[in-house]
Amino acid sequence: MERSVDVVVVGAGISGLVAARDLVHAGLEVLVLESRDRVGGRILNEKLPGGEPIEVGGEWVGPGQHRIHALIEELGLQTYPTHTAGRNIAEIGETRSQYTGKVPKMNPLVLADIGQIQWRLDRMARQVAAADPWDGARAEELDGQTFATWLRQAAYTASGYSFFRTITEVVFAAEPEDFSALWAAFYIGGAGGLDPLISFAGGAQQDRIVGGSQRIALALAEQLDERILLNAAVTDIDWSEQGVRVVAGGTTVRAQRAVIAMPPPLTGRIRFAPGLPGDREQLVQRMASGRVIKVNVAYEKPFWRASGLSGLANSDRRLVSTVMDNTPLDSSTGVLVGFVDGKDADTCARMSFDERRASVISDLVGYFGPAAQNYIEYIERDWAAEEYSGGCYHSFTTPGTLTRFGHALRAPIGPLHWAGAETATTWVGAMDGAAESGQRAALEVVRKVSARASR
Amino acid sequence: MERSVDVVVVGAGISGLVAARDLVHAGLEVLVLESRDRVGGRILNEKLPGGEPIEVGGEWVGPGQHRIHALIEELGLQTYPTHTAGRNIAEIGETRSQYTGKVPKMNPLVLADIGQIQWRLDRMARQVAAADPWDGARAEELDGQTFATWLRQAAYTASGYSFFRTITEVVFAAEPEDFSALWAAFYIGGAGGLDPLISFAGGAQQDRIVGGSQRIALALAEQLDERILLNAAVTDIDWSEQGVRVVAGGTTVRAQRAVIAMPPPLTGRIRFAPGLPGDREQLVQRMASGRVIKVNVAYEKPFWRASGLSGLANSDRRLVSTVMDNTPLDSSTGVLVGFVDGKDADTCARMSFDERRASVISDLVGYFGPAAQNYIEYIERDWAAEEYSGGCYHSFTTPGTLTRFGHALRAPIGPLHWAGAETATTWVGAMDGAAESGQRAALEVVRKVSARASR
Repeated sequence: MERSVDVVVVGAGISGLVAARDLVHAGLEVLVLESRDRVGGRILNEKLPGGEPIEVGGEWVGPGQHRIHALIEELGLQTYPTHTAGRNIAEIGETRSQYTGKVPKMNPLVLADIGQIQWRLDRMARQVAAADPWDGARAEELDGQTFATWLRQAAYTASGYSFFRTITEVVFAAEPEDFSALWAAFYIGGAGGLDPLISFAGGAQQDRIVGGSQRIALALAEQLDERILLNAAVTDIDWSEQGVRVVAGGTTVRAQRAVIAMPPPLTGRIRFAPGLPGDREQLVQRMASGRVIKVNVAYEKPFWRASGLSGLANSDRRLVSTVMDNTPLDSSTGVLVGFVDGKDADTCARMSFDERRASVISDLVGYFGPAAQNYIEYIERDWAAEEYSGGCYHSFTTPGTLTRFGHALRAPIGPLHWAGAETATTWVGAMDGAAESGQRAALEVVRKVSARASR
Repeated sequence: MERSVDVVVVGAGISGLVAARDLVHAGLEVLVLESRDRVGGRILNEKLPGGEPIEVGGEWVGPGQHRIHALIEELGLQTYPTHTAGRNIAEIGETRSQYTGKVPKMNPLVLADIGQIQWRLDRMARQVAAADPWDGARAEELDGQTFATWLRQAAYTASGYSFFRTITEVVFAAEPEDFSALWAAFYIGGAGGLDPLISFAGGAQQDRIVGGSQRIALALAEQLDERILLNAAVTDIDWSEQGVRVVAGGTTVRAQRAVIAMPPPLTGRIRFAPGLPGDREQLVQRMASGRVIKVNVAYEKPFWRASGLSGLANSDRRLVSTVMDNTPLDSSTGVLVGFVDGKDADTCARMSFDERRASVISDLVGYFGPAAQNYIEYIERDWAAEEYSGGCYHSFTTPGTLTRFGHALRAPIGPLHWAGAETATTWVGAMDGAAESGQRAALEVVRKVSARASR
């Protein structure tokens, strides 16, 4: 099949769909090519036994995420608060405690250490500019060290260091060895600080989408209708100043411009002719994705609530390092969602399905007691095992990369424009960043392409 | 075209060719698929104006590199010593000096610092096991920091630190920010220490191949004859315990097993079905290649020799940080070879060809005086711009990668076996490492595959 449009969009995650929608609004003919048999990218709903949708990918939104909130409103979707009422569980160091509010009970010395590390982290994040993090006075120094090195120097206590390792795993689905301190600062800065990033009320986990987060993508796809081609994995892009020729299986699409809306590491699988400039090639080689297995475990009821527990639990000694109440709105089924991040995901991915499930359930029993054994459904998603994701929650730059090749993240190359949550300047890697990047890429294209009507 | 053989080899660099040759010797039917229109991979001869071959890729061999020496002998090739007679030039810190022997004139304090850094580096390298560098007592600590962090802590003086930055750029074609201290230790350990790695006489730059290093690949290819298919870039590999189906353009090859002999980062461009296990995926995402532009500049005569200079020059302030006499044996034409590594390669790759050439020649004039202006030929090779190399001299693991995913570098996956200089245990990234890896992969396969005759 041969098609000809004004703009071809590669990828039907939120960034690609938003770009496509904006381009259509600008009067352009658009075709979106999606490798999978569904839209949404790293956002996906599955179903609980009762049929209610449950989020197995990106899920939460929070204050300050203006672009995704505007989109939610425009699409006629609603949000509701994440369930947080009750006492939380924390297993840190040798202790196990229950607490309310934001901070677990801890040795005051460790608490003071955590406070000063966070203060330094937030100060470092404020010093990094969102649009050009590679340009600051300390950029080279911070990009030259792993975030682990930075943490080791910042922490006075072993428990303070260990606390921030766990935070890193939860926030980045990666280990602090994996990326540079500059990437950490850029990422945290893009969220306005560590608190907004890790908090429920007032932070990035404050709200959920009624019907599940994939509804954002599904509603956008409905608007785009027949402009989306599924099961169309792009393998080749020929490009010149005159336009692009994009090959996906038996389909060839010619267009004036392309928006490539994929996790940056995956763009390296496409064969570009001519080859891309060295800086882009190097960037792509040097970005990698985090690794997370997200598990949703369903119960007849949210039994933990009856004991006054919120469902939130953290541990520095379990494979499932974070658990939250993920019961959907108005659902009678109770759901606990667990995250297995970074090295723990390495370990779990090497297990058989049965071993892994047993291990997850055993952690839930450890947190919430024997009632956690009586699950009615176990739903897991290993995003690193997905060919068209390569990992989750998002990709990061390895040390030395952001300063040398960060400028190539967004810079268009001839008719090629880049979108994707990693190309955002704020809320990088989140749904909000995805929306930002789609809008920005669409604007870039509209400035360059004349609509058919005016040609 | 459909072909069926016992073993398919992907890549006709030295590792792939060695593997293929060993497999043929074992009585197996082999086909080598090579993406380029030539064999040799990152090893390539071009021609001087007088027709003599000149090496624009990997070039030197040295003592202790037993596998490549055995291969050279077996193929009936000869070596000759790299030209080193005369005084060397060093520009370090604010000073410029000429010296003979191995060590430039330097402030004794700086010299002492360099000595103690090297001592610590060699000790660290000795502690890392070649076969399983991820297993040592300090492995996690060393893999968690960039080599830049390690150097900063090891150095007492700014000049000592700066000296090792330059060494890093020359040895790895990368910056010390790019990879972990553990990778540095593994790489240096595989060469038996820093001295063997950076030395001429007694080290890895001791000898050259008569006729140019690509003759190794060309001679192997001659033996393999019609078993090599050029211009056959592999895009898809379907695999199961029963065998592989490899697609390269219009050619489909079925085989019992495959040896994939490519730089690890490039293996990520192949679509494997089923997808590879997560650990391999993560490894590939987290390896990247160095960046070097190698320039050979030809003159009527090796004019520097008349002034008593060896042609060896180093500088911490020039884009061309290392220069050597690269005049071929019995050639009347004089050749200087220069290396533009790491960040300097970023800078030079962004220039136009004319700017870059002017900049290189200006550096040579800075080193050797106005006579360097009168070149008769300028031959450059930007290996990072080559689609089927993605960089040079070799790829490295970013921090946190070797300990978590290093085991996936060599581990076969079903019928898939991995070769390439990066999968060696000694002389990693060198021609010797490539030969080692090809032999090892062939052995793995022979143990598993029964020859047609015995079936």
